[in-house]
Amino acid sequence: MSDIKEIDLGITADMHVHLRDGKMMELITPTVKEGGVSVAYIMPNLSPPITTIDRVIEYKQNLEKLSPETTFLMSFYLSQELTPELINEAAKKGAIKGVKCYPAGVTTNSSAGVDPNDFTVFYPIFEAMQANDLVLNIHGEKPPKKDSDDIHLLNAEPEFLPILAKLHQDFPNLKIILEHCTTKEAVEAIEKLNEGYKPNDKVTVAGTITAHHLSLTIDQWAGNPVNYCKPVAKLPIDRNHLVKAATSGKPYFFFGSDSAPHPIEGKARHTGVCAGIFTQKYALSYLAQIFEKANKLDKLKSYVSDFGLLFYNINEVKSQKKCYLVKDKFNVPNVLGNKEITVVPFKAGEELDWRVEWKD
Amino acid sequence: MSDIKEIDLGITADMHVHLRDGKMMELITPTVKEGGVSVAYIMPNLSPPITTIDRVIEYKQNLEKLSPETTFLMSFYLSQELTPELINEAAKKGAIKGVKCYPAGVTTNSSAGVDPNDFTVFYPIFEAMQANDLVLNIHGEKPPKKDSDDIHLLNAEPEFLPILAKLHQDFPNLKIILEHCTTKEAVEAIEKLNEGYKPNDKVTVAGTITAHHLSLTIDQWAGNPVNYCKPVAKLPIDRNHLVKAATSGKPYFFFGSDSAPHPIEGKARHTGVCAGIFTQKYALSYLAQIFEKANKLDKLKSYVSDFGLLFYNINEVKSQKKCYLVKDKFNVPNVLGNKEITVVPFKAGEELDWRVEWKD
Repeated sequence: MSDIKEIDLGITADMHVHLRDGKMMELITPTVKEGGVSVAYIMPNLSPPITTIDRVIEYKQNLEKLSPETTFLMSFYLSQELTPELINEAAKKGAIKGVKCYPAGVTTNSSAGVDPNDFTVFYPIFEAMQANDLVLNIHGEKPPKKDSDDIHLLNAEPEFLPILAKLHQDFPNLKIILEHCTTKEAVEAIEKLNEGYKPNDKVTVAGTITAHHLSLTIDQWAGNPVNYCKPVAKLPIDRNHLVKAATSGKPYFFFGSDSAPHPIEGKARHTGVCAGIFTQKYALSYLAQIFEKANKLDKLKSYVSDFGLLFYNINEVKSQKKCYLVKDKFNVPNVLGNKEITVVPFKAGEELDWRVEWKD
Repeated sequence: MSDIKEIDLGITADMHVHLRDGKMMELITPTVKEGGVSVAYIMPNLSPPITTIDRVIEYKQNLEKLSPETTFLMSFYLSQELTPELINEAAKKGAIKGVKCYPAGVTTNSSAGVDPNDFTVFYPIFEAMQANDLVLNIHGEKPPKKDSDDIHLLNAEPEFLPILAKLHQDFPNLKIILEHCTTKEAVEAIEKLNEGYKPNDKVTVAGTITAHHLSLTIDQWAGNPVNYCKPVAKLPIDRNHLVKAATSGKPYFFFGSDSAPHPIEGKARHTGVCAGIFTQKYALSYLAQIFEKANKLDKLKSYVSDFGLLFYNINEVKSQKKCYLVKDKFNVPNVLGNKEITVVPFKAGEELDWRVEWKD
């Protein structure tokens, strides 16, 4: 453990955030700031998914009312409802920073998703995105084929990687993120697509890694639905590669929490458990544990601030307050919530070493 | 699908059964017969575990009161409380047919289990068991080492297999069962230990396979705690090897359901889900689905009757009634139970094709 007592993280960014809507949105949105995050990239998988400029603007306004100092970056949900014209207009208005692609049926509210075996139908959209410097955020799991067991939870991400490589080949200037990497193979694919990278090169293909995938393996979610998410946490060798990538100081790996709250009723079920782990409120505290254990606290700021802001080309933020982590033990509460809604946070009841503080 | 409408299974045997105690025992014990099973080998992992002749006799009497026509074969729980003298006495009295070995901490009520890295402390017990033709039933998973992630849910069984081979080498005449095989590697290990087997040879090392492991893979228990058991169901390639082994007609693979009921409260939890799947009430119906799909219904009788009875050398049974499977669709109920206790059966709500009938 280090002797460092305080870490200046500057303007922090979490580039993969689920804030939901309704009562859950009201409960969770303030936790972005509480968890140490200035800039949050917001996922569009509401029900129905966000595919219009009006809805994305309205959603952003709702979030800003709940947390005025947070900078919300917004996204569309990739679907056949999108058109190149809509992409152009949304980009010009600054309504969105990117488009999220969910393969159909792989996670929460992804039934409206796409078939990644035939992305060419979306190539006109990708052209428009590339022209407008928008980001394509990919949930990189191949959906199972009907009546086949070729694809399963452990190989769905590795089997998706050739599709990622093809996309990058066909759109070399489109900014693509493989979201929430979970496997050794995903880390290696991102490394390979950035082969020959030199300092100050522009990154076009990056991977985000969550806080929970830096900690969990299959043994911790089996029998513990609170730790169940998609993509599932894999084996120790995968987790070790993710930690190495996150702490590497390479600008093509940066933070996206994929914090995904569900009411406890969606977790404490004997079937049909909701996939998603709520990490938002203690996001940077969880990360500090990992980086300190790896003796890489010096790489934390670039992971949670510089690399994400650079990739998304973020120059304006709503608050100039800086996030600090202070060495000060506390216990994660067993639940968050109110009379109407209860959420169990990641590592409920466990002790963490680093507390968030904001300074002007 | 076959044109067969009725299958005579004779005197059937389920060589791995958890009947618990108290209210659960009262609810579940009658389901052995309802599920089509004449002879049941009963696991000793009560709390505290069964390690004395008085307790095993009392437990058997309790079970017989609840199901007079079922033949209950009883077992001790391997622990340092056992002595060779106790084994000799229990065998002479016919109180037990075997001893169950649980590595410490791998499943329900296994905290009193043993360290499989040093079995030599039990060699005097194994000597006595071998001399008395008792069976050693092994839960074959290597427990994780403290502060190490070398062992995880997916490799715990494969990593145990060298220990099994060593035991067989040291006690070539001790009857050993690798219970509830779940991996390709386990199937291959049992095959290898039986290399050169010729019809009518005595089998000394066998594997049991459950009904649920012939059906499930990781995708079905992730997010569905009702399907969570230990060892966990693995990948499609493993499941396919298990089906091939079970339907092979080889006498060193036979049926042990590992039916392990828990109240629904132990399943619908956000942490600490109880490991175990309740299959007892429809055990043979589940199996018939699998064997029919594999076009191997002709191998079902040997799997659920002959091979187990032969291995355990069972000549006397309490009832001569025979079990038949009749092609007659029905739906598995969503729950079983009463005001005090509710259990969710495997494949709740699903349709099965084969119904049990008993004939004199």
